Amino acid sequence: MDAVAVIRAKRDRAELTDAQIDWVIDAYTRGEVADEQMAALAMAILLNGMTARETVRWTDAMIRSGERMDFSALPLPTTDKHSTGGVGDKITLPLAPLVAACGAAVPQLSGRGLGHTGGTLDKLESIPGWRARLGNAEMLEVLRTAGAVICAAGDGLAPADRKLYALRDVTGTVESIPLIASSIMSKKIAEGTGALVLDVKVGTGAFMTSLESARELARTMVELGRSAGVGTVALLTGMSTPLGLTAGNALEVRESVEVLAGGGPADVVELTLALAREMLAGAGVRGKDPETALKDGSAMDHWRRMIAAQGGDPDAPLPVARERQVVAAPATGVLTRLDAYAVGVAAWRLGAGRARKEDPVQAGAGVELHAKPGASVTAGQPLLTLHTDTPERFGYALDALADGIDIAPVGTGFTPPPLILDRLD
Amino acid sequence: MDAVAVIRAKRDRAELTDAQIDWVIDAYTRGEVADEQMAALAMAILLNGMTARETVRWTDAMIRSGERMDFSALPLPTTDKHSTGGVGDKITLPLAPLVAACGAAVPQLSGRGLGHTGGTLDKLESIPGWRARLGNAEMLEVLRTAGAVICAAGDGLAPADRKLYALRDVTGTVESIPLIASSIMSKKIAEGTGALVLDVKVGTGAFMTSLESARELARTMVELGRSAGVGTVALLTGMSTPLGLTAGNALEVRESVEVLAGGGPADVVELTLALAREMLAGAGVRGKDPETALKDGSAMDHWRRMIAAQGGDPDAPLPVARERQVVAAPATGVLTRLDAYAVGVAAWRLGAGRARKEDPVQAGAGVELHAKPGASVTAGQPLLTLHTDTPERFGYALDALADGIDIAPVGTGFTPPPLILDRLD
Repeated sequence: MDAVAVIRAKRDRAELTDAQIDWVIDAYTRGEVADEQMAALAMAILLNGMTARETVRWTDAMIRSGERMDFSALPLPTTDKHSTGGVGDKITLPLAPLVAACGAAVPQLSGRGLGHTGGTLDKLESIPGWRARLGNAEMLEVLRTAGAVICAAGDGLAPADRKLYALRDVTGTVESIPLIASSIMSKKIAEGTGALVLDVKVGTGAFMTSLESARELARTMVELGRSAGVGTVALLTGMSTPLGLTAGNALEVRESVEVLAGGGPADVVELTLALAREMLAGAGVRGKDPETALKDGSAMDHWRRMIAAQGGDPDAPLPVARERQVVAAPATGVLTRLDAYAVGVAAWRLGAGRARKEDPVQAGAGVELHAKPGASVTAGQPLLTLHTDTPERFGYALDALADGIDIAPVGTGFTPPPLILDRLD
Repeated sequence: MDAVAVIRAKRDRAELTDAQIDWVIDAYTRGEVADEQMAALAMAILLNGMTARETVRWTDAMIRSGERMDFSALPLPTTDKHSTGGVGDKITLPLAPLVAACGAAVPQLSGRGLGHTGGTLDKLESIPGWRARLGNAEMLEVLRTAGAVICAAGDGLAPADRKLYALRDVTGTVESIPLIASSIMSKKIAEGTGALVLDVKVGTGAFMTSLESARELARTMVELGRSAGVGTVALLTGMSTPLGLTAGNALEVRESVEVLAGGGPADVVELTLALAREMLAGAGVRGKDPETALKDGSAMDHWRRMIAAQGGDPDAPLPVARERQVVAAPATGVLTRLDAYAVGVAAWRLGAGRARKEDPVQAGAGVELHAKPGASVTAGQPLLTLHTDTPERFGYALDALADGIDIAPVGTGFTPPPLILDRLD
């Protein structure tokens, strides 16, 4: 085997053999295939595609590059959720303890934010004392205590994917459906979950801006889950406006706690419940109503246990940004657009996100929404509140928002699109 | 400017701007654009192409990455030749002194062999004492003394190309016409020649196996020369059987000296004269017949001066391989095929070529031909003689030749194809 032969095969539109895929992933992980060779191969895959068979094998080879976790010792079935990322997408926070409260275990490995989408670990780290890094034994212990755990993936899980993901980021080879799907699914399958629900976001604030490409990604991932014996379902959900009323780290934790307390914004509750039902069905748990678990405090109880088991203080006050600025509605009428990407970039610029992996984030920074599309607004009323520790950034955030808000004349008919657009299994 | 934006533009089939091309070549030369980024860009270029305008700018940016030589102080016009490489292609050796004898100066920067094609510098290094590496002042001095110089390109010439060429070799991105053409032409234009003749090889032993792709490469290079103000002509010539009767280093020097002495194989003489006439026409030299210069000893005189000026002894005996093995004709009839690629690989395996840049070559190794396609042969007569210092390699050479020889029944009509297939200017 040599790297040039594998690159040339894909370049010339041949289907890679199992042996070629196994070798190139293993040799890349070991450093025998160089970064520049994998970059050329990734570009050839992006432009020439991979068949379903190749994508399954590629995913499997990435799983086999590291350890595969095993939660079969737990007395509960395991189930997990993955979101392709959006603005204000805090769903993992209420969802994991909610599903745990209904009788399934949720071993949730999450990531940090990069660019305009936030990261679940960044959000939880705004809780004083909370730790994202757990060893495998500790992770199992939190699962036993709280029924759910949200933590960073260890270095042993799909190391080929970690290396390839960083490479794709700097070589313009991110936007390939087989590479995106295999990256997500290799981690989720190696994580050892028994069932998986995918939340594939569609819209301006999402990685996939068209329904067609989102559906193709969802279909590819569902197929990869099935091939690996992990029952997988995907929901396609809208991401053209932020989820809920907050985008930012501590801001989103506060909103998540509201949902766990039985309140919270309607769209966050709707999506949390829909995903919880899918996760419970995937785990084979019947007869439990997640809506009840939000009302009766059992979901909140699991949240408090989960946070405490990872060193966090669920009663500690959350960080608050030092400065605020209100953005007023520029006109009277119907808010028809509050663009997810614009809000995501604004929150990022205010300090909630990072431009490079090594950057710190501000716990209190972000954007608070006072109205959602479909609402009637009056000129001058508060539409958004911007939060930051670094007020010199307000201007950059306002620039990002400038083209992100549309208000139609009073009386304009406008119905926001449904949140859940499709379901694939 | 950032590398990912440039890669994404080409990946998405946009035409790169002048500013993007200038920046990416400069930043790659300085190490700011990483190898893995250039590898992804090269693959995107290979698969999505470059327009004529992009290729001209890319070439120009590579020239500007280093120094540009200047021979305007010479009293003679300069002219040069480049061959895309073939088996038994020793034409540069008799050609450079022949053109010098006719009144044009030939500053010929040459390379070493890799794989089944030999390199001009490897051939000349079989002459005791001869040195390939000259400084710029020394190169000019040899040109003044002998009218021709054949030497290695210095490190200052198109450093972007040197870096990119090595990268393409290991990333499966060699076979791109814009990248091949810009690589060749950036070096030739930076070398400062006033006129250029390209010998684009077509056939089994050549880089381009189809006439169509060879013509596209030739057309691209002629256009690049014209854009840079260097009058450029291309001949398309056959490379399905070796040129002349030898493939190997010292073996080819001996054959070249025969040509300079007024003898030598007809095909080598034909191509040497055709290229000499083009080079002289390009340099504006009129009224000189290169055929006469071969007969009257003036070309040989320039050869001897050129070799001596670079430290070589033109009278020293050439190295001879320690072992020989004769390959007999397997049947009686008409030799219809003696495959260039098979002979090239056999010579390489006997020690005349190298598998990696750092490998040494054997001066005496190679293949000697006793018949060319079109000849009548008798079963058992010597067809080839293999030369090597390492007789354990005879078997590997014979394996390479096994499918490379066809003999048709006595009386079969067979006319070898013409050597010169087309001319572009």
